[in-house]
Amino acid sequence: MQEKGSISIHTENIFPIIKKFLYSDHEIFLRELVSNAVDATQKLKSLAQLGEFKGELGELKVKVSVDKEARTITISDRGLGMTGEEIKKYINQIAFSGASEFVEKYKEKDAAAKDQIIGQFGLGFYSAFMVANEVEIFSKSYKEDTEAAHWVCDGSTEFSLETAEKADRGTDVVLHVAEDSDEFLEAARLRTILTKYCKFLPIEIEFEGEVINQTAPIWTKQPSELTDEDYTKFYQELYPFSEAPLFWIHLNVDYPFNLTGILYFPKVKDELQFQRNKIQLYSRQVFITDEVKDVVPEFLMLLHGVIDSPDIPLNVSRSFLQADAAVKKINTYITKKVADKLAELFRKDRMGFEEKWSDIGLFVKYGMLSDEKFYEKAKDFALVQNVGGKFFTLKEYQEFVQANQKDKNDQTVVLYTTDPESQHAFVQAAQDRGYDVLKLDAVLDPHFIGQLEQKLEKTTFKRVDADTVGKLIEKDEQQESVLSDDDKTKLQELYKGAISNEHMHVQVEALSPQDAPVVITLPEFMRRMKDMQRTGGGGGMQMFGSLPDSYTVSVNANHPIAQRVLKAEGEAGSKLARQAYDLALLAQGMLKGEALTAFVKRSADLLATE
Amino acid sequence: MQEKGSISIHTENIFPIIKKFLYSDHEIFLRELVSNAVDATQKLKSLAQLGEFKGELGELKVKVSVDKEARTITISDRGLGMTGEEIKKYINQIAFSGASEFVEKYKEKDAAAKDQIIGQFGLGFYSAFMVANEVEIFSKSYKEDTEAAHWVCDGSTEFSLETAEKADRGTDVVLHVAEDSDEFLEAARLRTILTKYCKFLPIEIEFEGEVINQTAPIWTKQPSELTDEDYTKFYQELYPFSEAPLFWIHLNVDYPFNLTGILYFPKVKDELQFQRNKIQLYSRQVFITDEVKDVVPEFLMLLHGVIDSPDIPLNVSRSFLQADAAVKKINTYITKKVADKLAELFRKDRMGFEEKWSDIGLFVKYGMLSDEKFYEKAKDFALVQNVGGKFFTLKEYQEFVQANQKDKNDQTVVLYTTDPESQHAFVQAAQDRGYDVLKLDAVLDPHFIGQLEQKLEKTTFKRVDADTVGKLIEKDEQQESVLSDDDKTKLQELYKGAISNEHMHVQVEALSPQDAPVVITLPEFMRRMKDMQRTGGGGGMQMFGSLPDSYTVSVNANHPIAQRVLKAEGEAGSKLARQAYDLALLAQGMLKGEALTAFVKRSADLLATE
Repeated sequence: MQEKGSISIHTENIFPIIKKFLYSDHEIFLRELVSNAVDATQKLKSLAQLGEFKGELGELKVKVSVDKEARTITISDRGLGMTGEEIKKYINQIAFSGASEFVEKYKEKDAAAKDQIIGQFGLGFYSAFMVANEVEIFSKSYKEDTEAAHWVCDGSTEFSLETAEKADRGTDVVLHVAEDSDEFLEAARLRTILTKYCKFLPIEIEFEGEVINQTAPIWTKQPSELTDEDYTKFYQELYPFSEAPLFWIHLNVDYPFNLTGILYFPKVKDELQFQRNKIQLYSRQVFITDEVKDVVPEFLMLLHGVIDSPDIPLNVSRSFLQADAAVKKINTYITKKVADKLAELFRKDRMGFEEKWSDIGLFVKYGMLSDEKFYEKAKDFALVQNVGGKFFTLKEYQEFVQANQKDKNDQTVVLYTTDPESQHAFVQAAQDRGYDVLKLDAVLDPHFIGQLEQKLEKTTFKRVDADTVGKLIEKDEQQESVLSDDDKTKLQELYKGAISNEHMHVQVEALSPQDAPVVITLPEFMRRMKDMQRTGGGGGMQMFGSLPDSYTVSVNANHPIAQRVLKAEGEAGSKLARQAYDLALLAQGMLKGEALTAFVKRSADLLATE
Repeated sequence: MQEKGSISIHTENIFPIIKKFLYSDHEIFLRELVSNAVDATQKLKSLAQLGEFKGELGELKVKVSVDKEARTITISDRGLGMTGEEIKKYINQIAFSGASEFVEKYKEKDAAAKDQIIGQFGLGFYSAFMVANEVEIFSKSYKEDTEAAHWVCDGSTEFSLETAEKADRGTDVVLHVAEDSDEFLEAARLRTILTKYCKFLPIEIEFEGEVINQTAPIWTKQPSELTDEDYTKFYQELYPFSEAPLFWIHLNVDYPFNLTGILYFPKVKDELQFQRNKIQLYSRQVFITDEVKDVVPEFLMLLHGVIDSPDIPLNVSRSFLQADAAVKKINTYITKKVADKLAELFRKDRMGFEEKWSDIGLFVKYGMLSDEKFYEKAKDFALVQNVGGKFFTLKEYQEFVQANQKDKNDQTVVLYTTDPESQHAFVQAAQDRGYDVLKLDAVLDPHFIGQLEQKLEKTTFKRVDADTVGKLIEKDEQQESVLSDDDKTKLQELYKGAISNEHMHVQVEALSPQDAPVVITLPEFMRRMKDMQRTGGGGGMQMFGSLPDSYTVSVNANHPIAQRVLKAEGEAGSKLARQAYDLALLAQGMLKGEALTAFVKRSADLLATE
């Protein structure tokens, strides 16, 4: 026995699934029904353009109204309308997409029609049952000599259909709101929903006597038609009370996917308080979501603006989006457009670009770190700034410091500070030597430094307090020491005793007499490892976390205090060494708590009596 | 003309929707098919218990195998099996829930059966077509004298069904993997999926000759059957390499919803690096997700463990979950259980509770701030700790400081530090006065302080540097000044000139001669406003952000330096005042950058020559 047959779906079981699963937000019903009304209106306009409809179009507004007493919401359009037969075809047979049949039929005549048609008729309509216990349709077709039809369904799988009287062409959908959905009988709530989803629909939507939408938002226009003012005005509409954006990118692509939109670079106020999810995603001018993760590359999530694409799959979860081929292409396209725009800004207006760098640097560095292709484009316009405020491209900076900051191994040593204020003593010491110091104090800079060391040839980065100034960039010169080797050993022992801290590695060095009497430094490698561990990077770095900080205490053999410490009798030498060491701790921001209180007290007493 | 009819669904259109929308992760297919197999096996066990099946149950393992050459994945069970008629009924008619029919039939005989049945047969099965272009079923019913059946479907809506030879009772589902799903032919990938979703299924699952699941995970057992070791061992299984948990709560409720599970309080390493999403959500031992937002109250998201509930709606989005009544009840239940557990720990082992406070304080404070009911329970066991390390409940602390820290208006003033190290000088000054100082340095403490001030009667909080120590708690006593009013005015002018900073409000005060010569304080109210603004709280607080910090500089009229400044000639007085002011800046952690470097240099020169 072999049998063939067709798989069937039990409507009474699938219905609750559609209601529950397909749309998670109940408020979506209004988006779907208004979209359908707009769709029917657009279709009629298309037919008129094609000459298939020869009647009067007249006013084509979609009207939404609510009657709290009668507990109804009505959505009316003056579009195509439907005959009884069409209702049976399009409404009674769920998932029969009226839109796709229409497109199929007219696609050769008008390719653009496809883009003007919203949603998939059929499924969207049934979202009405999320909030209504009964739905009525009154409809009259644009076709001549057809009767109006009246359809009713109470949310079960049974419907009734009869002929009706209706003066006007088009469709009225009347929702009898269910008891658990009272919220949707509030005009304020409906207005909020309409504003959220329908603000930019291409047909006028009227609610309480007011048109609530802009039918031709600027992203649907050509950049050549638009002024800077148009862009900033639109930005203000999207984000009232926001500061003006730095600049924007108008996206417009037809192939291999369809996407329009405008991305704005906002002023970043606080790197740590990112405001993500400010990009709104639309599909043919219908608002879909402001969760654009995976559509927009991670590093551009901080941008603002709108993206409109019928090619982004909707109502699907994140992990699906990630794998979607169209989404990947969109991602790549946006990255490229952003890189091109930045390159253009840099080329055309370097001054302006530098002024904006504090806002855009974050995006650029994040992009360079996360996307190799973006790095290749950005490396020519990415900037670094020195503590004096001057900007350089990476190439310019390498050339700038090359002459003075090459060590004996022919490596260019780039000096930087992560905090010009707390590392001031070290910055000044380096500058006094004629070195330049970069300010690399942004959140991403530790990673950026790591990347640059890999990418740039023969270049290493050192923080200004990684060593005493004479050794930051090792050259073939040596400072003479005024102390004998014996005295040096004695001095070292004296300091070791005075400090008595095993994590402080005391050494005596011949620095300049003008340098500090004692300098505390943190070797670059260890500091980076610990930083990385602290910020959670580097999976296997746990081991460094348990290591104590490791400092080098360099005692300046050539400073007058060295002589005084050696010559002092008894406790006095140790006291003097301790005071010099405290000053070094102060300069390194390490004199704290009880030790600082004691130092301040000691100094005040001294001041009172000296 | 009136017509009545039935709404129908076009299968060829709904199919892609099921494939694409219902399950966003393709890997889910394996969870669904294995769950179905387990389900069929459980059902047979139920029938045997009820005496409806009298044959040998034999080995009941579910076996999963993959054949890379043949491009097939096979899931075999020895459960109920299906006749050709049953296949037509259950498989060919999508969304006909076999499980619910079974439950309906047997519910009076065995109420527990409902809980043992996984998923909704029908829809889950079709998820196979997400990865397969052809699916075969070989099945033989447990019923005597029935023929085995072989069903094939290539993902269209057509199927074929014929009788077949099958020795063994049960069902084999054979997936012919589609080209775009090659990944699922890798045994390693399948093992990962099985481990993720099926690790705790109640019937043994065999893959590559190994059983991959525990059929009776500890949360399904009674707490009385379990030892501490069982709980910690299970924790290690869930989170290898984690530190042992502090304690745990075994959840077990039948009514008004069904929920079991174990929640662990982990050791919190770093308040700022929360590890959310460590709670795993199961439905009848099938892993569903580790995104438990909305199921678990926000403040308990940091807990670890498992929750198993058939009452949590699956495959629905966040906004739907939020509104779900069962989820709300679950939320309330978990909050109550956690509060009760904490209260019990506090009551039974106060010492242990104090030791764990640094880990659990964050949860407790977050809970108190976000949930009024939790506050009411937690206020009796929430702890505060003073800088000496001693813990108090809120009530104990109020009693402890009452005698000494009431001001002249009968308000109890609680003194606190947000950083015992950097505010050390102020903490010490307060302690020298006999005041107690709390350490309130946690992320949430600023909000916690605000809450306590609202809840506790006649109690205000002041940071130790909010005023000079004599004025922190205003009493009806006054320190005599050794300076005349003229001298005071002269001293104030001298300091104003030396400091020359309009944001520093200089005043002369009669402090103790042992107090510092100059003290810089930040008035409590302004500091809080600015803190709030900085951390992003308080919507309308922008105005305070633009205000500069406002400090009070209190010059101690009774300190010997005051006399010296007044008596000094020419520049010397100003220099001395400046040095005393610098020491006050140092004590307040405000001497920075260039000013600090200059101070250090000046002090070193002094040291070298004095």
